[in-house]
Amino acid sequence: MPRAKKNIYDNVSPRIVKVIPLGGLEQIGMNMTVFEYGQSLIVVDAGLAFPGGNMPGVDFVLPDITYLKENQDRIKGFFFTHGHEDHIGAVPYVLKEVNAPMYGTKLTMALIESKLEEREMKDIAEIHVVQFGDVIDAGDFTVEFIRINHSIPDACALALRSPAGTILHTGDFKVDFSPIVGESADLQRLAEIGKEGVLALLSDSTNALRPAYTPSEQLVRGTFDSIFSSNKESRILVATFASNLNRVQLVIDSAAKFGRKVAIEGRSMVNAIEIARQLGYIRFPDNVLVDIETVNNYPDSEMCILMTGSQGEAMAALSRVANGQHRKISITPNDTVVFSSTPIPGNEKAVSDLINEIAKRGAAVQNKATHVSGHACEEELKLIYALTNPMYAVPVHGEFRHRQANAKIAEIMSVPKDHVILINSGDILELSKESAAVTGEVPHGGVMVDGLGIGDVGNIVLRDRQNLAEEGIIIVAMSVSRSTGQLLAGPELISRGFVYVRESVDLMEGARKAAQEAAERCLGMKMTDWGRIKTEVREALGSYVWRTVERNPVIIPIIMEIS
Amino acid sequence: MPRAKKNIYDNVSPRIVKVIPLGGLEQIGMNMTVFEYGQSLIVVDAGLAFPGGNMPGVDFVLPDITYLKENQDRIKGFFFTHGHEDHIGAVPYVLKEVNAPMYGTKLTMALIESKLEEREMKDIAEIHVVQFGDVIDAGDFTVEFIRINHSIPDACALALRSPAGTILHTGDFKVDFSPIVGESADLQRLAEIGKEGVLALLSDSTNALRPAYTPSEQLVRGTFDSIFSSNKESRILVATFASNLNRVQLVIDSAAKFGRKVAIEGRSMVNAIEIARQLGYIRFPDNVLVDIETVNNYPDSEMCILMTGSQGEAMAALSRVANGQHRKISITPNDTVVFSSTPIPGNEKAVSDLINEIAKRGAAVQNKATHVSGHACEEELKLIYALTNPMYAVPVHGEFRHRQANAKIAEIMSVPKDHVILINSGDILELSKESAAVTGEVPHGGVMVDGLGIGDVGNIVLRDRQNLAEEGIIIVAMSVSRSTGQLLAGPELISRGFVYVRESVDLMEGARKAAQEAAERCLGMKMTDWGRIKTEVREALGSYVWRTVERNPVIIPIIMEIS
Repeated sequence: MPRAKKNIYDNVSPRIVKVIPLGGLEQIGMNMTVFEYGQSLIVVDAGLAFPGGNMPGVDFVLPDITYLKENQDRIKGFFFTHGHEDHIGAVPYVLKEVNAPMYGTKLTMALIESKLEEREMKDIAEIHVVQFGDVIDAGDFTVEFIRINHSIPDACALALRSPAGTILHTGDFKVDFSPIVGESADLQRLAEIGKEGVLALLSDSTNALRPAYTPSEQLVRGTFDSIFSSNKESRILVATFASNLNRVQLVIDSAAKFGRKVAIEGRSMVNAIEIARQLGYIRFPDNVLVDIETVNNYPDSEMCILMTGSQGEAMAALSRVANGQHRKISITPNDTVVFSSTPIPGNEKAVSDLINEIAKRGAAVQNKATHVSGHACEEELKLIYALTNPMYAVPVHGEFRHRQANAKIAEIMSVPKDHVILINSGDILELSKESAAVTGEVPHGGVMVDGLGIGDVGNIVLRDRQNLAEEGIIIVAMSVSRSTGQLLAGPELISRGFVYVRESVDLMEGARKAAQEAAERCLGMKMTDWGRIKTEVREALGSYVWRTVERNPVIIPIIMEIS
Repeated sequence: MPRAKKNIYDNVSPRIVKVIPLGGLEQIGMNMTVFEYGQSLIVVDAGLAFPGGNMPGVDFVLPDITYLKENQDRIKGFFFTHGHEDHIGAVPYVLKEVNAPMYGTKLTMALIESKLEEREMKDIAEIHVVQFGDVIDAGDFTVEFIRINHSIPDACALALRSPAGTILHTGDFKVDFSPIVGESADLQRLAEIGKEGVLALLSDSTNALRPAYTPSEQLVRGTFDSIFSSNKESRILVATFASNLNRVQLVIDSAAKFGRKVAIEGRSMVNAIEIARQLGYIRFPDNVLVDIETVNNYPDSEMCILMTGSQGEAMAALSRVANGQHRKISITPNDTVVFSSTPIPGNEKAVSDLINEIAKRGAAVQNKATHVSGHACEEELKLIYALTNPMYAVPVHGEFRHRQANAKIAEIMSVPKDHVILINSGDILELSKESAAVTGEVPHGGVMVDGLGIGDVGNIVLRDRQNLAEEGIIIVAMSVSRSTGQLLAGPELISRGFVYVRESVDLMEGARKAAQEAAERCLGMKMTDWGRIKTEVREALGSYVWRTVERNPVIIPIIMEIS
């Protein structure tokens, strides 16, 4: 029986625990939450987010950890619920700024270690591998790891105990009574903690808008067995998330059962599978795994290729295969291609285009009943409320509308309406048995990563990128004598993304003349304020272009002063 | 009984009709198909397509009509199936190049006329309004208009008769036995034509992947009645497609039944409703329609606002309302907002963001069972195959995978496999009772419209826009003396969409130095080939930036020669 640091029911003065999400509440992604009691601070997860369509060129987005940097000395530890990128992806970046012991189950920590090794940062990290049921001391907190189900093995819910009470954080979860890897969620332990008394439940809102239950992963096993059994002569290609290791095991099992070899393609999938295999989370029957280099040595009927790219990502394995750009694999009419995932919102069009591409090459496409979600639906959320009977409900992990739906479920499950709390990233939520209130705000928001640059692409840069993309750019360069104020060279026009210049000679010449007239008019008036001249040139050129083709390219006048 | 020009069953020598789609087969949109017999050419529809996410700045896309221009004298007429943009939107652009009589039902032609009036082109158009059952002479063809159902009134299927046989073109269709406006599809006439003998059926593939039937629009009436009856105190906002005039009528009916006024917001919807109202296709009960200016004079419980923006389009009414940018309407917790459409692929994220925005402002969002499609599902397609029993099936209106699904349905309906024909835009399909074959190709593809420019944005410009959006641009300008080869000014660096310059002073100065060193090295070697110097500068600068931040901005060196 895990102990609480003090008697949490000692009610003499209100004992307050703070909940401070740094991300995860405006989107699916960038999950990171600070919990604070007195001088102790613990952090649950450190995830990244993938950029939206309005962030061209951005590789990914990190949570703002200013608050952690400011409170570095008080951080007692990082606690991880599971090994997906939206929960562990920010670790290398966080670790550069803030160091504290890190705790998680075996697979989760192995995935984090692999990230750190890649960046030669493993030495500076203090990594602790825990087991389900372990309780970690962390200042005024204790943290208990509880087995839960998700689309990756070793996923945990966390019971965060402090003198203010117990906060139960579900992590990303579903309830699967027949998981492919590992055991079913530890509902008994959740019930026991519920009996002890739960101050607040923070639960996964991803699927709160969906009624009923998320089916067991076993449902997908049935689909795969049927695909393998009814396509005996075809080669079978299966695309799924690299990180959906339960699905990967299922496909391996099904392929082996029907006498096929399995090859893996896609760097992130190869890595994830290798780590999981070493730790025993993925098992290949003997002689099933073959090297991707040997893929064409086997007849179609004996080959199954597992790959990345089920979301239509342009650079992932399946897209390259479908577009004929893959070194080893090309689509033939004897292929059956299985999309074993549903499109993430925003990816629908890319997935649809990819399916068309594959269908045009004559292959069959299967995307029905080949996926179940890793997240709990309405009735599973109700189950957790019923088991834990929390005083407060704080829906997490989801966009506003998902969390709102989870809030309604909490109310149905008898959490009083004023104890159901929808907060935003950055909010300081103070919880005690007496009251709950948002009392302030910490710095928060997405820090964009582009190449090696972290945070040097902000809203202004993004707005510029948007303008450049929609309208293109015209650069108008000229050289002016400082002494005489005469135009010595130019104006010369260069454009990108505006018009196809060779077929728009008149337009470009007209634009050049408009710029020249404006420049000469200014210089003729002995104007020496280059800024003002640039403005005049920009306006004259812009107005000409608008009149002629009703477009608004970005216009950049450059005046080089020659002494 | 409509007559054919000659005895179409005269089989002495093979009589060939050509089917040449200029668009509509790679996407939902840009529908336009040429039919050709001997010296006669007719055109069905002239639609535009909306740009994909990979076409930033593009307003819309037109079909390439080179083939029509080359055969201008032989065109006997344009025939329109219905008044949606993807079927009539290209008319003003086509008419500038190619003029011929235009035929369609009343509402369709009124919508075309309104387009032409806006551009002061009405005088040059020869517009003919037809009724269901009319048969138009068009050279070697006759064209019969047959009543069908769709999400806009007055939709037609077309029977195109030539000495080679009858081609039946369904247009966009569903079978609705209880439509909101107008009558049920004329299945008897389709059957009769089937009995006469149909050479080829060109049918709408949009929903061919969906099983069963598309429900009647009346199903949505039930949903709306229930929304109105269970939200008596709320203001109700309904967003749908401006062109879904059947839905518009349904919402008006339901609002009036529950004692509400209706106001319309969104320019395209106001226009479409006004045209439909004048022609009697939309009926407002007395005193129901109110001006949008008076919308705040009524209590919430008596107001229903119909508006555009159900697809999350940034500039449409609902987005402006949700973002607090609307002059008259703002969202309150007493609003119920109904999304009466499903997101078009590619719009899912925008719709989801919009729902979050509305939910955050406290309003209720309804988007379940508030829409039925305007397109036929699998069993309706089968019905048309059964009624018309075509010799050939040529699936149209859809991406490859949709048309492929329609092809499979044709096979199920006993069209022989080698008589089921999947063609691409630009293909010349020659059909006769003896054979079917693609015998050539005409120019085809999307012509992009950006502002007033038609076709001056092509793939090179788009690729530039993509690069600019993802990486930003660095311009490096310098002036060089022609006589001495000395650097007189610069290099000066200007960037957009690259980094936030004020916070990246070191990076930009390093880049400038790299450019300067390269330029001076070249000039020191007395190099006078400016092109080569530019290349050296671009490479030096690019390599510096890559080493430092791992990015690849577009780099534009400008050298101004001073004499």
